[in-house]
Amino acid sequence: MADSGARIGVLGASGYTGSEAVRLLLRHPKIVIRTLTGDRHAGQPMEKVFPQFAGLGLPTLVKLEEVDAGALDLIFCALPHGTTQTVIKKLAVSAPKLKIVDISADFRINDPDIYEKWYGHAHQAVELQKEAVYGLTEIYRDKIKTARLVANPGCFTTTSIIAIVPLLEAGAIDPDSIVIDSKTGMTGAGRAAREEMLFSEVSEGLHAYGVGHHRHMSELDQEFSLAAKRPVVATFTPHLAPMNRGIYATHYVKLAGKTTAEQLHKLLIDFYKDEPFVNVLDFGAVPQSRHVRGTNFVQVGVVADRVAGKAIVIATLDNLVKGASGQAVQNMNLMLGFPETEGLMQLALFP
Amino acid sequence: MADSGARIGVLGASGYTGSEAVRLLLRHPKIVIRTLTGDRHAGQPMEKVFPQFAGLGLPTLVKLEEVDAGALDLIFCALPHGTTQTVIKKLAVSAPKLKIVDISADFRINDPDIYEKWYGHAHQAVELQKEAVYGLTEIYRDKIKTARLVANPGCFTTTSIIAIVPLLEAGAIDPDSIVIDSKTGMTGAGRAAREEMLFSEVSEGLHAYGVGHHRHMSELDQEFSLAAKRPVVATFTPHLAPMNRGIYATHYVKLAGKTTAEQLHKLLIDFYKDEPFVNVLDFGAVPQSRHVRGTNFVQVGVVADRVAGKAIVIATLDNLVKGASGQAVQNMNLMLGFPETEGLMQLALFP
Amino acid sequence: MADSGARIGVLGASGYTGSEAVRLLLRHPKIVIRTLTGDRHAGQPMEKVFPQFAGLGLPTLVKLEEVDAGALDLIFCALPHGTTQTVIKKLAVSAPKLKIVDISADFRINDPDIYEKWYGHAHQAVELQKEAVYGLTEIYRDKIKTARLVANPGCFTTTSIIAIVPLLEAGAIDPDSIVIDSKTGMTGAGRAAREEMLFSEVSEGLHAYGVGHHRHMSELDQEFSLAAKRPVVATFTPHLAPMNRGIYATHYVKLAGKTTAEQLHKLLIDFYKDEPFVNVLDFGAVPQSRHVRGTNFVQVGVVADRVAGKAIVIATLDNLVKGASGQAVQNMNLMLGFPETEGLMQLALFP
Amino acid sequence: MADSGARIGVLGASGYTGSEAVRLLLRHPKIVIRTLTGDRHAGQPMEKVFPQFAGLGLPTLVKLEEVDAGALDLIFCALPHGTTQTVIKKLAVSAPKLKIVDISADFRINDPDIYEKWYGHAHQAVELQKEAVYGLTEIYRDKIKTARLVANPGCFTTTSIIAIVPLLEAGAIDPDSIVIDSKTGMTGAGRAAREEMLFSEVSEGLHAYGVGHHRHMSELDQEFSLAAKRPVVATFTPHLAPMNRGIYATHYVKLAGKTTAEQLHKLLIDFYKDEPFVNVLDFGAVPQSRHVRGTNFVQVGVVADRVAGKAIVIATLDNLVKGASGQAVQNMNLMLGFPETEGLMQLALFP
Repeated sequence: MADSGARIGVLGASGYTGSEAVRLLLRHPKIVIRTLTGDRHAGQPMEKVFPQFAGLGLPTLVKLEEVDAGALDLIFCALPHGTTQTVIKKLAVSAPKLKIVDISADFRINDPDIYEKWYGHAHQAVELQKEAVYGLTEIYRDKIKTARLVANPGCFTTTSIIAIVPLLEAGAIDPDSIVIDSKTGMTGAGRAAREEMLFSEVSEGLHAYGVGHHRHMSELDQEFSLAAKRPVVATFTPHLAPMNRGIYATHYVKLAGKTTAEQLHKLLIDFYKDEPFVNVLDFGAVPQSRHVRGTNFVQVGVVADRVAGKAIVIATLDNLVKGASGQAVQNMNLMLGFPETEGLMQLALFP
Repeated sequence: MADSGARIGVLGASGYTGSEAVRLLLRHPKIVIRTLTGDRHAGQPMEKVFPQFAGLGLPTLVKLEEVDAGALDLIFCALPHGTTQTVIKKLAVSAPKLKIVDISADFRINDPDIYEKWYGHAHQAVELQKEAVYGLTEIYRDKIKTARLVANPGCFTTTSIIAIVPLLEAGAIDPDSIVIDSKTGMTGAGRAAREEMLFSEVSEGLHAYGVGHHRHMSELDQEFSLAAKRPVVATFTPHLAPMNRGIYATHYVKLAGKTTAEQLHKLLIDFYKDEPFVNVLDFGAVPQSRHVRGTNFVQVGVVADRVAGKAIVIATLDNLVKGASGQAVQNMNLMLGFPETEGLMQLALFP
Repeated sequence: MADSGARIGVLGASGYTGSEAVRLLLRHPKIVIRTLTGDRHAGQPMEKVFPQFAGLGLPTLVKLEEVDAGALDLIFCALPHGTTQTVIKKLAVSAPKLKIVDISADFRINDPDIYEKWYGHAHQAVELQKEAVYGLTEIYRDKIKTARLVANPGCFTTTSIIAIVPLLEAGAIDPDSIVIDSKTGMTGAGRAAREEMLFSEVSEGLHAYGVGHHRHMSELDQEFSLAAKRPVVATFTPHLAPMNRGIYATHYVKLAGKTTAEQLHKLLIDFYKDEPFVNVLDFGAVPQSRHVRGTNFVQVGVVADRVAGKAIVIATLDNLVKGASGQAVQNMNLMLGFPETEGLMQLALFP
Repeated sequence: MADSGARIGVLGASGYTGSEAVRLLLRHPKIVIRTLTGDRHAGQPMEKVFPQFAGLGLPTLVKLEEVDAGALDLIFCALPHGTTQTVIKKLAVSAPKLKIVDISADFRINDPDIYEKWYGHAHQAVELQKEAVYGLTEIYRDKIKTARLVANPGCFTTTSIIAIVPLLEAGAIDPDSIVIDSKTGMTGAGRAAREEMLFSEVSEGLHAYGVGHHRHMSELDQEFSLAAKRPVVATFTPHLAPMNRGIYATHYVKLAGKTTAEQLHKLLIDFYKDEPFVNVLDFGAVPQSRHVRGTNFVQVGVVADRVAGKAIVIATLDNLVKGASGQAVQNMNLMLGFPETEGLMQLALFP
């Protein structure tokens, strides 16, 4: 964090994606953190909520209504899904020049009808929804640069879009038989105190959830269909693994026509050859989630299946960094004209 | 363990499947543990190698060549793959009445050519291979009862056979598009000291291995093909999860003809309705590996996919119990004429 | 669980100590579980709350006020501290022949003034408090046999009483310089949904809590003072470790007079030589919590310190079994005239 | 890592302390990594051994004898204890201007006789031993600045020296009754493949080791005695906890004369008030290891014990950073005239 620079706020700083944004911003040389909100913790210093930030001069947490949006250049919204759209609507009115990166799911679905179908209520800020740019940086970089409101993608969807979209765009795989088996660390479930997230409920075991009907599917449908230029509905099963961080997504694809697994690999290598944060491994190599822990990097591997005409594409990232707040900072860098990798080149904490 | 009863030996008692057999046998009322081998640890009391067995009167570990096979009624072989076949060949000659449950992979593949293809060397006991009965109790119960040599199935294969074989037998799913995404706890990798199994290499992360070419596939092929009465080759990817115990297998299947997911569920309910160790959950319910931790139970769930014509079948078990030594004891019970559930009704250690 | 036998109720069956009592009772051959309460979950089958109990014929959870105490022989109280004393007071009136094992802290402190000092409110059932027997089985076995109300000890205190009381009774250590550094698994904190117990808050880290002023100290003071026949106040620091189960207590003691560490070891060996659940290791050997996981056993080790005149006594047990519900069943066995070890001989689930 | 700058080598880069040094050095703006050794892995790119370093232009691993010491400005030695002294002796002869930070234990003990007593063999480089400066930066900063050879302290000792040395220097605690109960994450045990370090041996449990006679005691004795200006022998027990990183040391001290716990706190606050990496919490606050995970920071808490005249001082750090390679880089910064905090200001990865 610099002494001066772009003035930044983080709404929802007492949750995991909020604190992760703070971790990254504190070491970003071109910004100043001016405002942190945390409703339950309003009035407390940030270091009472997250003692790792002791002595770093962070502002005290305030309530949402205390935020002076006009005094900020950019706000990260790390609020719960559903409430965010109303908050952002007010901000957009009161501070029309304010740039916003929303880390919630509220503005990710372009079509308000589809939003309503998956989320069970009408969207409260339809005009802003039209304006919002989907913040998968590697796909929508140019639009993000000039956006006022960026809808930062979900962690599962970021992982699978990076693995699959280039293959759909190239027509290299069958859009009708994609199977995604994804595993996430526990921080993906957030910091709300729920019985099923207690250590003793989760440790030493594994399970799937949201089988057959998980909300992240709407994001996948949207982006996969755009890439394939036709409707795509993939099979997707998320699992909870006993670890803090990491998305590990195993994609089972059917090769189109005479395409080979090696050609899928070549397609991904070419697509990402200039990307600073996407690392396509050698053909046949298998990534591990721990090698991207704490970083904004994605690792992608492509392996031929022994079943003829099939391939396995594996992608892994840190759900709190590239899957949430890291990509949010990456988008901020673009929106504020900073180098895209500024503040984001931390290496993996392994072991 | 009784004061008298069937005389049992465990070869390879210093590994995890061996010690798990000992854990179960120590509380079995109809047997006596007479012999334990552990080559590296020969001469040591078992409680030096596994202190949880202190004070239970177990025999001291001996070398393989010290085993008096003629003084035993049944032996569990928990030796490394590859060496087992030679050991068992000698035992079968020296003690023709001895019954054997082999927990290694050596006798699981009926066809010696296929064995050689996957394991890279000719089988050393082809005659015994012909005689061996595949020990998936719920499928081959009658043959096991009269067998001299039972080839106990692998942990991944037990899980997936229980989930899929009844569906293939009934012709309810497409045999050509089965995708199995399986996750295992670390004990599945055994107790050999290898860098990649160290706590710090494994904790806080997840990864796939053997992608596209895992040896357990040969077992799956064999049993799936027998069930479907035609060659079946499934896609199978194992993953290592940071937990001690548990196989969690997510099966993606294409429904045959007009079959529905509910009908798959009904098929499994019917198939296992009298089975003491297989618990098919209500339709739509999703199992968790922790609910079978330390037990011989399997939990199975069936969920309809949102993609038309597809379903997701999930099965979970404890890799050291139903996936190895528990099923071995279940088979012993059949081979020695004991009640099938004797010594195996422990409940899950959760949390 | 038998078809007939002593009629048992478990109050608070939806928490961890309650479900652990159920796990043990389900395999106890001389009792029948007649009643389970779980206020938030009243009306639900137990197997919805703990799916590992599927198909075992457990009664549906009811509310506390629905319990017919007169129809039961013995009740386990696994309710939150503080509320228990009122509940038990009512039970004792309505069903004077009912035997009760209270797993909460409510009846552990003999002196109502000391209770009030540590717990911040007057005891609500002083008469019953006088009657209650402290349920550390190895120390108070005879009184427990005839008790109507047993106050089952805490997990930290059970561990340290077993390690230290025989040494204080023998005058072998200095009562004024005992230091206890204790570590517990997360189930010791219960199943209430609190932020600081979430997996991601706890995994991959360690910390002390209640430093200098933990409530369990009042139990230690009471029992240590009784053993030494003079007031004893020990230093005690509990720590939370990232594991589900286990208390691991390291005791630093100053040897009295010319006593040696070997003599401490001899004292403990003699004290526990006929105890089925206390296992004193060879002199110098160090126990591990995993070797008692899931069991009612305690392992104790004694080591000489390199600092002259000092020794280190280490004790470990499973906080949910010997530290709570296992000892509760052990006490039930005594109170109902069953063999003390009935239903409690499970071996450790390691690995 | 800069394009030019001080030329650095890391000997033993395939272990955990070596790779941690590389992680930190790769983001250090004033140095270039020129040489990495890893005997078993010589000839392999570093990114095959640690895939998180893919694409960062690191040199290929070489054998020790291939190192051109004359072409380097400073070397980090992360080799096994015992072999290091011979290696460094050769380097000191062949490249007399080379600066060396030794992360092993070889040069930490000033007195060769004491070294021999604890390590069981005569020191092989006694002259260099005399020259070596003990690298606890906060204590020996001035000597380190001009040192040619720095003996980087151990992780347990760094933690306890930071907590206790200022108190001994001030005469505020009784030197004869210090009890240290320390807990470490598994990376402290290194990367050698040993059975007792396997995930399944370690997960879900806790145990002490080296009780009464751990080698790190010789370092503690030396530094505590220097601080107290008289011989000090503390009680010290290390424990292994199921986590990757972190030392958590609970120190039990007896206050000297009429000193209070608050005064201990004040002493530490004053001692560390200008230190960038030592954070003394408010009086009574208790640190958590996770809040320093991945960082070079130490957190220290002081609490009054309820036992009169006693206090509890808790210190925690990341064993691979401030406990090893972070402090090594901190020392490098001093030795090469860089700002002391350069490259070391990463914030904790929590959750």
